[in-house]
Amino acid sequence: MSALKKSENPENNPRVKAVFDDIRATRKTNFINHLWHYLAFNPELLEQTWREVKAVMIADSALDPLVKEMIYIAVSATNACAYCVHSHTAAARAKGMTDDQHADLLRVMALAAKTNQIANALQMPIDTAFDADQRGS
Amino acid sequence: MSALKKSENPENNPRVKAVFDDIRATRKTNFINHLWHYLAFNPELLEQTWREVKAVMIADSALDPLVKEMIYIAVSATNACAYCVHSHTAAARAKGMTDDQHADLLRVMALAAKTNQIANALQMPIDTAFDADQRGS
Amino acid sequence: MSALKKSENPENNPRVKAVFDDIRATRKTNFINHLWHYLAFNPELLEQTWREVKAVMIADSALDPLVKEMIYIAVSATNACAYCVHSHTAAARAKGMTDDQHADLLRVMALAAKTNQIANALQMPIDTAFDADQRGS
Amino acid sequence: MSALKKSENPENNPRVKAVFDDIRATRKTNFINHLWHYLAFNPELLEQTWREVKAVMIADSALDPLVKEMIYIAVSATNACAYCVHSHTAAARAKGMTDDQHADLLRVMALAAKTNQIANALQMPIDTAFDADQRGS
Amino acid sequence: MSALKKSENPENNPRVKAVFDDIRATRKTNFINHLWHYLAFNPELLEQTWREVKAVMIADSALDPLVKEMIYIAVSATNACAYCVHSHTAAARAKGMTDDQHADLLRVMALAAKTNQIANALQMPIDTAFDADQRGS
Amino acid sequence: MSALKKSENPENNPRVKAVFDDIRATRKTNFINHLWHYLAFNPELLEQTWREVKAVMIADSALDPLVKEMIYIAVSATNACAYCVHSHTAAARAKGMTDDQHADLLRVMALAAKTNQIANALQMPIDTAFDADQRGS
Repeated sequence: MSALKKSENPENNPRVKAVFDDIRATRKTNFINHLWHYLAFNPELLEQTWREVKAVMIADSALDPLVKEMIYIAVSATNACAYCVHSHTAAARAKGMTDDQHADLLRVMALAAKTNQIANALQMPIDTAFDADQRGS
Repeated sequence: MSALKKSENPENNPRVKAVFDDIRATRKTNFINHLWHYLAFNPELLEQTWREVKAVMIADSALDPLVKEMIYIAVSATNACAYCVHSHTAAARAKGMTDDQHADLLRVMALAAKTNQIANALQMPIDTAFDADQRGS
Repeated sequence: MSALKKSENPENNPRVKAVFDDIRATRKTNFINHLWHYLAFNPELLEQTWREVKAVMIADSALDPLVKEMIYIAVSATNACAYCVHSHTAAARAKGMTDDQHADLLRVMALAAKTNQIANALQMPIDTAFDADQRGS
Repeated sequence: MSALKKSENPENNPRVKAVFDDIRATRKTNFINHLWHYLAFNPELLEQTWREVKAVMIADSALDPLVKEMIYIAVSATNACAYCVHSHTAAARAKGMTDDQHADLLRVMALAAKTNQIANALQMPIDTAFDADQRGS
Repeated sequence: MSALKKSENPENNPRVKAVFDDIRATRKTNFINHLWHYLAFNPELLEQTWREVKAVMIADSALDPLVKEMIYIAVSATNACAYCVHSHTAAARAKGMTDDQHADLLRVMALAAKTNQIANALQMPIDTAFDADQRGS
Repeated sequence: MSALKKSENPENNPRVKAVFDDIRATRKTNFINHLWHYLAFNPELLEQTWREVKAVMIADSALDPLVKEMIYIAVSATNACAYCVHSHTAAARAKGMTDDQHADLLRVMALAAKTNQIANALQMPIDTAFDADQRGS
């Protein structure tokens, strides 16, 4: 099932081939997952999406690569994105996420969802102590 | 504005006082934020919520305290919980989150939301390579 | 703050006046809350929305009026609709929701949000025992 | 898999048959998709839902039919409704949505989700210039 | 498909066995649904989750057991949790939810989602009459 | 209230000044809304966000500028992003959105949210006729 037709022979398009080559080289694998195959229907959208994933998730940055994958999982589960939860949990495991870390991630995500629900149901005023413009950072 | 009336003199109730005392002792501050004041209308709900926040966010666990706050922020923003975003961003800052880490957190959260949206709009099949029951972890 | 301009003298329009009159008569109060004042910019949308609210929430049906308000609150908090949480919590209180019922509602909503988060993060297969086409109801 | 049992021989009920006949006549096809088959368990709910879909999506209105389908897809993907994304993407394609329009729709939806996430994480004050009550429209 | 590997022989772990035994005894059935099998990878998370489900959904409380299941369904559908909608609709049916009650639940949930969308798009100010701190309850 | 401190004198930073200059030139106004002022704490994030907004929302593309704003509003309301709903409704009005178009947008968004809720609560199977891989587009 898919809401968009998967491109046939996408690498016949040189822009698609260039992206796929870069995915293979960057990830050191021949496996190209479905997201990229389906995005290939529009080479520009494919290029933009891959460029951003590479810049944010693969390039060095202020956060640890595994931490970034866990944040990704947290957002994806909250948005009920089955595909993204699967792909980024696999990525987190490949980057060394242990069972204990996975359980802790679930515990934090679940508690956040729970207190979000309570706070959104109480709608109480936000403490002025939490206002960053007054806190100074 | 609030959807529930804030309790007056909540510490007249000994169960509420015990929770508030524990919050002050655990956090080493006299400041008790609104969430706990509003939850005081039902001492049992107050106790349960605080016990879980303390066990998950404050006790030692497999993840670093700052990482847990960032995961909390990620879920809270996705759920549009204004109160929780404010309180946990303040907590993350208090635990040392730098401007660069904050910007990186925003970048990962924003990319996740973006690709969640794309994947949920394409609805393509999940790669069998992502099935944990076949991956073995 | 509002994303749409509030209508001035909306009851100069007879279709708006007819809806406002029906709201006042049905609810036995002169108070017309903001939702209806803002929807008045388009009398047809106003009429459709009020007709549906009246048919679903006020007419007799298989569920108790207070139960319907609690379901409404549950959906509204999950959707982070501040306005709706406020208006339907006020409605539930007016229909007799006690503090204990409110706390129980929050407890169920919070647990549901929590296990939703866990199940959406695990993405495990649905048990065939839950398939209604096989259960027979 | 389904959470509700599909009705058997739903057109034995004359109210269901009348709705199904109208769907076939309006859409000029014998195909009745699953939504209507499952809603047939309650003829009143079936009638109400079809009446509203017909009035909003099929009757002439201020927006172009294809634009309405694209707005529908945008909401449905954001709500992670797999069924609705599939059915309304098929409808948009049937109404002429091109690959370029589809890619542009995805790009706008993805950017909106991204900036929603950033704005919900920053929680900055809304500019008074955006207040419609002051703007005048 | 699953994002986490299902535990093999989970009851070899005595903590898991104790939880499974309690589920069987409490529910008076030998059927243990997938959620618990997958949570068994971390006995502590399994214990915490079951303890809370038992306390909130099974123990006597201010709300009727069927009402609690309907609130659970409302939250789960809004969060697009396919697993939870399936399991809690089965539970509601087992507790006696009739077709008419199910249809009414859908009608209230659908109306709430609709007016949430309208109110979140209008962003009008909340009436001070809805402020619980002024209402007194 | 804000979860991040607003930058003071952001244009002292030449990268921020360059973005602000481009915003003013592109939009032909001296008004720079809060989003950009708050993003200025990290010039790279500011540059990336503005570059993408400009490319997607301002550059010519397959969809009409007003249609893009309406899609943006639809996603933003569904995500309960108060800031984004305000800013993009103002933008849509500035691009000529009439009251009738606004009402029609609300009607489509509301119906989508309603049927999303119903379909997510029924969890019925997706018709194979909706599978793009079989449809051919």
